[in-house]
Amino acid sequence: VTYCVAMKLNEGMLFASDSRTNAGVDHVSVFSKMHRFEIAGERQIVLLNAGNLATTQTVVSGLRQEIKRNSPGNLYEAGSMFDVAREVGIKVRAALAEIPVEEKAKLDFGCTFLVGGRIAGEEPRLFMVYPEGNFIEATRETPFFQIGEAKYGKPILDRVLHYHVSLRDAMKCTLVSFDSTMRSNLSVGLPIDLLTLRMDDTVNVKHMRIEEGNDDFQALRRQWSEGLRSLFSALPNPTGWD
Amino acid sequence: VTYCVAMKLNEGMLFASDSRTNAGVDHVSVFSKMHRFEIAGERQIVLLNAGNLATTQTVVSGLRQEIKRNSPGNLYEAGSMFDVAREVGIKVRAALAEIPVEEKAKLDFGCTFLVGGRIAGEEPRLFMVYPEGNFIEATRETPFFQIGEAKYGKPILDRVLHYHVSLRDAMKCTLVSFDSTMRSNLSVGLPIDLLTLRMDDTVNVKHMRIEEGNDDFQALRRQWSEGLRSLFSALPNPTGWD
Repeated sequence: VTYCVAMKLNEGMLFASDSRTNAGVDHVSVFSKMHRFEIAGERQIVLLNAGNLATTQTVVSGLRQEIKRNSPGNLYEAGSMFDVAREVGIKVRAALAEIPVEEKAKLDFGCTFLVGGRIAGEEPRLFMVYPEGNFIEATRETPFFQIGEAKYGKPILDRVLHYHVSLRDAMKCTLVSFDSTMRSNLSVGLPIDLLTLRMDDTVNVKHMRIEEGNDDFQALRRQWSEGLRSLFSALPNPTGWD
Repeated sequence: VTYCVAMKLNEGMLFASDSRTNAGVDHVSVFSKMHRFEIAGERQIVLLNAGNLATTQTVVSGLRQEIKRNSPGNLYEAGSMFDVAREVGIKVRAALAEIPVEEKAKLDFGCTFLVGGRIAGEEPRLFMVYPEGNFIEATRETPFFQIGEAKYGKPILDRVLHYHVSLRDAMKCTLVSFDSTMRSNLSVGLPIDLLTLRMDDTVNVKHMRIEEGNDDFQALRRQWSEGLRSLFSALPNPTGWD
């Protein structure tokens, strides 16, 4: 199972995905469920994926191959993030079209992508691409998307996250959301890939991989857990409920 | 959508279900997704249901009809809660067997029941009956079951609930769990039916219906929400994450 979150906030963008395995790295950096396509100073594109692994790999490999072959419309040439999302959607549709109808009845071959980033001349943008290949865009009112095992970690995002939350608070909130998910579903696990892109920095992204021994994350988990228990203990006993 | 929780703890049992509509009440008390079968002082049986409404109504009506007809094995004659769970499972299987295979391919007619309570001479017991009609029983290590829209409200139960938690804390925890669910899924809503059964009281159960205007519940929701925000704000900023 996978859990991924991406958000577009006033201060910048944040992408996070769980990942238990290391994937290979080439000139297009790949971090298991997080895939980067970058031209320094010109475009930063991040893909997060959930769903059928064969389908997602077909999609991502296809996108990379088009870059190598310099095909028209490849992600290094796309004129906008909208075009990038459309290209991912086309690839998803094509990958599923190859699978015979009778096989699709037996197994879910679908996959979902979060597609975000910035292309020079445009604001950062974030999209969620559905298994059908169509997609929606994040707005100020709906600044985050989740894919995969999303429900355990949604309540804290619903409570805390909005467009004007700082990127630092968004990171903390994301980590709490992952903590809740990992406690309730053993198949979502560390390491977590976390990537941020600041509005005021067109060149750099920051990528962190949070592994098992990460002291900060352990401290955050412990403090959150203890805090929740104290908070719970302090709740008043409703009258007449004894 | 439905959300139901049931638990068997050291101090007693707790059942909770969301329900937006009032259902009729006859000698077998019925509260929408919560159905009671009671012989005062002798047996207290509670059913909670999630899933296809037609199927669940077929099951519950069938169980009531058997009582009226005094059929062998009806819930007023069952010798143990195990027999009750088996009877519910048989009824679920029978209801689904009536539906043509080609219809089942189009729609999910399945339903899931939480079946718990006490029959004189036996400890209270709690079961979860699957759409296939088979079932599992709660234990000290796994003292609670959820059905329906379960994931949003699971993290708080995972963190707080264990066999030796008091019934009062279990109630608070359940209400927080419903609060998280209702915030993240608009189709789960008040009123909440809450029923408790104490180990040391063989005769009485306590039933409450928490409606929109319930001040205690509103206070609990507000206090939890504000507490979570303060707790979140107090989390340390991990080093090097700026």
